Amino acid sequence: MSKRPFDLNAALRGRMVLAESLFADLRRLSADGVGVTRAPYSEKETAAHDLLAQAARSVGLEVEADFAKNTYLVLRGHDRTRPAVIIGSHLDSVVCGGNYDGAAGVIAGLVTVAAMIDSARRPAIDIKVMAIRAEEGTWFGLDHIGSRAALGELPAEELKALRVDSKRPLRQHMLETGCDLELIQSKKRFLEAGSTRAYFELHIEQGPVLEQAKVPVGIVTGIRGSVRAHAARCIGAYTHSGAVPMRMRQDAVMAVMDLVQALRQDWRDIDGAGDDLVLTFGKLYTNSALHQLSKVPGEVTFTIDARSIDRTILDRMAGLISAHAERIAREARVEFNLGGLAFINPARMDPALFNGLLHASRFLDIKTMSMPSGAGHDAADFTNAGVPSAMVFVRNYHGSHNPAEHMEIEDFCLGTQLLAEAVSSVAA
Amino acid sequence: MSKRPFDLNAALRGRMVLAESLFADLRRLSADGVGVTRAPYSEKETAAHDLLAQAARSVGLEVEADFAKNTYLVLRGHDRTRPAVIIGSHLDSVVCGGNYDGAAGVIAGLVTVAAMIDSARRPAIDIKVMAIRAEEGTWFGLDHIGSRAALGELPAEELKALRVDSKRPLRQHMLETGCDLELIQSKKRFLEAGSTRAYFELHIEQGPVLEQAKVPVGIVTGIRGSVRAHAARCIGAYTHSGAVPMRMRQDAVMAVMDLVQALRQDWRDIDGAGDDLVLTFGKLYTNSALHQLSKVPGEVTFTIDARSIDRTILDRMAGLISAHAERIAREARVEFNLGGLAFINPARMDPALFNGLLHASRFLDIKTMSMPSGAGHDAADFTNAGVPSAMVFVRNYHGSHNPAEHMEIEDFCLGTQLLAEAVSSVAA
Repeated sequence: MSKRPFDLNAALRGRMVLAESLFADLRRLSADGVGVTRAPYSEKETAAHDLLAQAARSVGLEVEADFAKNTYLVLRGHDRTRPAVIIGSHLDSVVCGGNYDGAAGVIAGLVTVAAMIDSARRPAIDIKVMAIRAEEGTWFGLDHIGSRAALGELPAEELKALRVDSKRPLRQHMLETGCDLELIQSKKRFLEAGSTRAYFELHIEQGPVLEQAKVPVGIVTGIRGSVRAHAARCIGAYTHSGAVPMRMRQDAVMAVMDLVQALRQDWRDIDGAGDDLVLTFGKLYTNSALHQLSKVPGEVTFTIDARSIDRTILDRMAGLISAHAERIAREARVEFNLGGLAFINPARMDPALFNGLLHASRFLDIKTMSMPSGAGHDAADFTNAGVPSAMVFVRNYHGSHNPAEHMEIEDFCLGTQLLAEAVSSVAA
Repeated sequence: MSKRPFDLNAALRGRMVLAESLFADLRRLSADGVGVTRAPYSEKETAAHDLLAQAARSVGLEVEADFAKNTYLVLRGHDRTRPAVIIGSHLDSVVCGGNYDGAAGVIAGLVTVAAMIDSARRPAIDIKVMAIRAEEGTWFGLDHIGSRAALGELPAEELKALRVDSKRPLRQHMLETGCDLELIQSKKRFLEAGSTRAYFELHIEQGPVLEQAKVPVGIVTGIRGSVRAHAARCIGAYTHSGAVPMRMRQDAVMAVMDLVQALRQDWRDIDGAGDDLVLTFGKLYTNSALHQLSKVPGEVTFTIDARSIDRTILDRMAGLISAHAERIAREARVEFNLGGLAFINPARMDPALFNGLLHASRFLDIKTMSMPSGAGHDAADFTNAGVPSAMVFVRNYHGSHNPAEHMEIEDFCLGTQLLAEAVSSVAA
């Protein structure tokens, strides 16, 4: 028993050659001249699925697909009637993205089960490496299409969404990829909590936390949810910037500044109390058709993105946003139209799986830190569907969603060792 | 002697019929369907000059023009060798503007000298009603073209500026209007301090101060100058709004907010000390090509317009803008590029002429208040050329530079009475 992790580890190290070769093949098949582009439900995405399926067959795995054309690379367990473990991630990318966001998780899954085979460690239950379709939200304006379809949770109306490049609907792209729209529309569940023991996902970190902390691997505590204003507006009055005294103005920029300041103070309070919150005003602009240097600005449009792994913090922020807006509107004689606040639920990772990863990191002597995921991931959909989920982050430089994203293969290897150890424990 | 103001006043009241008729004619000849539009150096502007010239001749005035085609409606004084008094204002308007901004001052001048003729009060020195060309800055991106040309202060390179509607240069529009470009380019002075005893200008107030104070007429203390950033930029870094902790961000919106807050505090301090300052960020925007709800904003472009009648306050603000930007850049790890701060000198109205107007208001029992002019006016150019200048504001509703601007003819009459009393004192 004491020899097991050593063997698996050694096998994994040996499989890094396969991983690097797959990363290179993926980059080649989806290079766009600057970065890589694999649109969801495109030929490029399908080619990536085919590449992984071929590699899976060559190491002795079975290959399946569901009605949304997610691909499953299956290592058969001793008892196929028991719920399976899934190691999932996506193979699509953003436009001109990097080669690791998404793909690293699928390749990590593949080399994990390949190493289990190499070390003659057949699991008790099936382990399915799930290559997921259409995770990136920028293409259809919809997140996590593949996983939601497999979980029977894709609303039929979303099939009408147009892909930004082709201007053609998701329905059409899915049909061309061979999906079964009837099963998707009837919200058939290919995967469900009852038949899934656990969901694991390895992903490059999309922020600089691991890099700055000089830690190669992160263990995710939860995926932040959000409360958002997608197009809030502050309406004041355009007047002359020289002729109108400050106290007679209805200055939309000054009013929005007051709101930003008030919410930033709330962030300080919440952060100071040790609670999780990030706060962003990503878009904030006066009206280019009407604004002038010498006009008091009469209108500002802005977004609010407040994220936390704690739903109560999001509820508190929603209340604060509305209360501040109401007070400032009165004081500054402007009008705020927040346009409705939209919530995305946070997804707490499964405590037992989290502890399993923590235990594995100590056992393998891999330096890790626990951290929230600020970005959304398919793991959130599995969590919300009742599947115990866990995530491993691998240190990555220069952020993600751009060609400069950079993951060291050594860090990938450490993250995959942690994943493999935890998965083999659960599947044992 | 005690009868003089009564007579002049009565004559002025009688001339309000002419004033209303001229306002109606002006509106008719320049109506654009919604408001009025009289572009500088356009046929419409020339038609307005012709209308005033014709009215001037009909009341017995001489009509002259200078090489920049400003029109002078001249009431001959007893001694034509002595410096003249000018009552000036402009006849051009912004696109879809109101009928009173500018024109009210020319019509006030005309009815003033008409009333002097009516009351048989020939002045000691010439009184010239100057109808000025091209005051509005929005057309060529240049302010006060006509007055600067007459004062020999129009830089030759400004003749290349294109008019926003025609896309043709000022040079060409001036030629078509009959201007003498050689004299303008050689900076010949048609008017100078030595030959001009005083410059008076009546203008509608462009802010709500008189309206809110329920006072019909304002006496201007000075014309605010400004220190401005025309296209300041804050450069941070675009990163993921969920994945990057607050303390690791280079958030351009947050940094610009800090600058706005700091400068607003400076305004409170300066205003609290009784000094004159208004502060406006009329344009402030994230980059629409790159900003997203879920991205930390990496760039904000903004304007600063700080105005005061006191040059030392402007110098102080320039220092504060730079100092805050430097400190915030360091703290927020962003870069500020203020793009150079541009000054426009404030123009203090002549104290003796100001007191003359104040005295006249008491004499005539007209309720007035003293106030700065926040907007620029031709009077500033005369002041800066060494001509003693004074301004009268007339209460106006709904601001200026829009079709809704509204002046009551009774308020116009009171302002003109004040103007006429002060002018006739100076010209006596």
